[in-house]
Amino acid sequence: MYGKDTAAGQTANASCVLFPVSTEEVVSIVEFANKEHMALVPSGGRTGLSGGATALNGEIIVSFDKMDKILRFRESENTVDVQAGLIIDNLQAFAESKGLYYPVEYASTGSSQVGGNIATNAGGVHVIRYGMTREQVLGLTVVTGKGELLHLNKGLLKNNAGYDLRHLFIGSEGTLGIITEACLQLRRKPKAVSTFLLAVESPDKLATLFPWIQNRVDLLAFEVFSNVALNYARELEGFQFALTEEYPCYALLEFDKLQEDSADTKEAREEEIMTALLESGLILDGTLALDPDARKNLWKHREFIPVGLNQHQPWKNDLSVRIENIPRFIHELDAIQSEFSNIKIAWFGHFGDGNIHVNIPRPSNVDEKPFSESCQKVNQKLYLLIQKMQGSVSAEHGIGYLKKDYLSYSRSKEEIEYMSAIKRVFDPNNILNPGKTVG
Amino acid sequence: MYGKDTAAGQTANASCVLFPVSTEEVVSIVEFANKEHMALVPSGGRTGLSGGATALNGEIIVSFDKMDKILRFRESENTVDVQAGLIIDNLQAFAESKGLYYPVEYASTGSSQVGGNIATNAGGVHVIRYGMTREQVLGLTVVTGKGELLHLNKGLLKNNAGYDLRHLFIGSEGTLGIITEACLQLRRKPKAVSTFLLAVESPDKLATLFPWIQNRVDLLAFEVFSNVALNYARELEGFQFALTEEYPCYALLEFDKLQEDSADTKEAREEEIMTALLESGLILDGTLALDPDARKNLWKHREFIPVGLNQHQPWKNDLSVRIENIPRFIHELDAIQSEFSNIKIAWFGHFGDGNIHVNIPRPSNVDEKPFSESCQKVNQKLYLLIQKMQGSVSAEHGIGYLKKDYLSYSRSKEEIEYMSAIKRVFDPNNILNPGKTVG
Repeated sequence: MYGKDTAAGQTANASCVLFPVSTEEVVSIVEFANKEHMALVPSGGRTGLSGGATALNGEIIVSFDKMDKILRFRESENTVDVQAGLIIDNLQAFAESKGLYYPVEYASTGSSQVGGNIATNAGGVHVIRYGMTREQVLGLTVVTGKGELLHLNKGLLKNNAGYDLRHLFIGSEGTLGIITEACLQLRRKPKAVSTFLLAVESPDKLATLFPWIQNRVDLLAFEVFSNVALNYARELEGFQFALTEEYPCYALLEFDKLQEDSADTKEAREEEIMTALLESGLILDGTLALDPDARKNLWKHREFIPVGLNQHQPWKNDLSVRIENIPRFIHELDAIQSEFSNIKIAWFGHFGDGNIHVNIPRPSNVDEKPFSESCQKVNQKLYLLIQKMQGSVSAEHGIGYLKKDYLSYSRSKEEIEYMSAIKRVFDPNNILNPGKTVG
Repeated sequence: MYGKDTAAGQTANASCVLFPVSTEEVVSIVEFANKEHMALVPSGGRTGLSGGATALNGEIIVSFDKMDKILRFRESENTVDVQAGLIIDNLQAFAESKGLYYPVEYASTGSSQVGGNIATNAGGVHVIRYGMTREQVLGLTVVTGKGELLHLNKGLLKNNAGYDLRHLFIGSEGTLGIITEACLQLRRKPKAVSTFLLAVESPDKLATLFPWIQNRVDLLAFEVFSNVALNYARELEGFQFALTEEYPCYALLEFDKLQEDSADTKEAREEEIMTALLESGLILDGTLALDPDARKNLWKHREFIPVGLNQHQPWKNDLSVRIENIPRFIHELDAIQSEFSNIKIAWFGHFGDGNIHVNIPRPSNVDEKPFSESCQKVNQKLYLLIQKMQGSVSAEHGIGYLKKDYLSYSRSKEEIEYMSAIKRVFDPNNILNPGKTVG
């Protein structure tokens, strides 16, 4: 449904939905909106979790569903020009057809779109190797809130001619301009990828395991989750637990090379590193994928977690701290948990990026009201913790309107003032996604 | 000498030089400047080529020579907090002492500083693997033109809480704020690096060679130069030409792995790729480094070029186009060359980044006046070409004041207006590096 995203508890209040087919039409829409004092909400696949695509007050929805084309592939550069409405799965399939790879991978790539990905600087499970969406963008076509068309960076790899406005629009949640087209860098697809599921005794062991493994292999992913979180994945059909018994925490990791790689085969490489892991005393148990089906099943241990949790009306947070602070962060999380007897915190996320998703599913024996009260208290403690640790209240989900009140836990008063001033520069009439980020 | 950088023909006109020892002192300086209506020029190692560190009208120089400390290394992250005045060579030596690597490498790392590198988004020879300075910066401490202290991004790998102001300051040449400290990502040092010098028949062959090699190895560098350019390197003492005869163009490349690497040793890997190169018909000749001294000598073929050229009062340009357009760009360069009988264009640069340095040394038999007239005409044609090809008038050297008049060849009127508006947001009294970029 247009006018809201996938975060719970929203009501869409849009006046209409427009489906432009070209950048020029988007320019006209923005000009019209300025003239008629109407507000616009740019709308991609609406898979966000912060209400960034939500119409709050009768705004006009600008959907990119009809701007979903691949415009041009450049073989000598491995780059592709696309329209903002292209669905990420289709982009990935296109890359694949060229023997290449678009590395931003996460659960909702089947419906989320390029423009939305750029506007929210989407992350996912391969940030540790390829960076966020930000790092894939070589060029950006944007219509500002004033209705001016900008072609930013134009596919250049090196460009120090003035301020890099491109990076200002990336992650700005449609509050400064509407992204209509982008030039994206495709990559070579990693080959002979090894997938390991490892069980460890505690979050501290995860923190020791991470640099240990990072110094030995070229990591593609280092995902982590608690047993509490895993149990929600196990509720789902089609899940097969890959170990013989339960452990406190798990890491799911992928790599394609050893750092000093003299192994002839993937199998030899896997044996070398699994043997070293078992000898290290860092892990309690571990298994690895021997074929593509087994790999898919190991990934379900991580990917099914949010799906399973979603069946329990969870409170969600998407927090990050610097890598150094993760062990302390998880300890403090345990301390917060211990204060509440009626809820259980489930954590999972991207250890290698410092990004932990903290979810609280509602236990079936706890009513909504006391549940919500406990969650609010946990939330408050979590945000104070993030503030103390100089982390981010939104690692990859953005601010939207749902996290606007929490922005000040991560950004100073002066930063927020500068952000507001920049908003006024690009969108003086506040017609673009009002009420989001700093608008 | 304080008050100017290494671009030719400048006169320093500074009122004094200040040497703050802390961020707090920088805040005081900016507050003082605002109160007294004095302008400031932040000054690093002054190795720039666009006059970005030049005092034009009695400004106060703010030197970072006394803020040159390494503040903190975080082993679990491979990150380091440093002051802005730290010299890049010292940063690299520190990284080395930790078994790590700071990958921004170029000619003047012996005197250029971290703050200057970030303010100009320095590039160098390894951009193809590691990106520009921009990609190394995880956190930034900045004093804005209003004298406000900002701690941006704070070392986080994932942070989507509001606009990423960090990227606005990177590459802004001290016109929005003064960088006082930074958190930088260090890397694992590449091991078993292979270095090849290859000779090819034409720029077109370079353009064919580049994707050919990029699909086979993990490139660390792909530098190119014409024989005209190489001859200026050959004038210098300590240079040994590594091939037996001259060829029209050369590529100097480094890699550390084959894409599908089953080679047991560096030697086996080198043999495999050199044999394939010779069989491909793409190269006319080639040699490779068998030991560190030979590697150093091969690099002189590239690094000595600007040094040799500098002895001939060269006109310099630092242009980039998208990779796809490089062959056409070099053809057009040849066409421009053919219109002038009294000059010879020497080109060299970073093919893999789309970045070509176009230099015109003054022939000994041409007087300064006709030389300068020809260069101005070439310049005009070059900038028009860059405009037509949607390239950058400054790939890695910045705009400073020397290229300000050319900014409009790369950026639209609207972009420049937005840049000016952003300048007013952060530096309303225009006290920071006035006359540079858009100030």
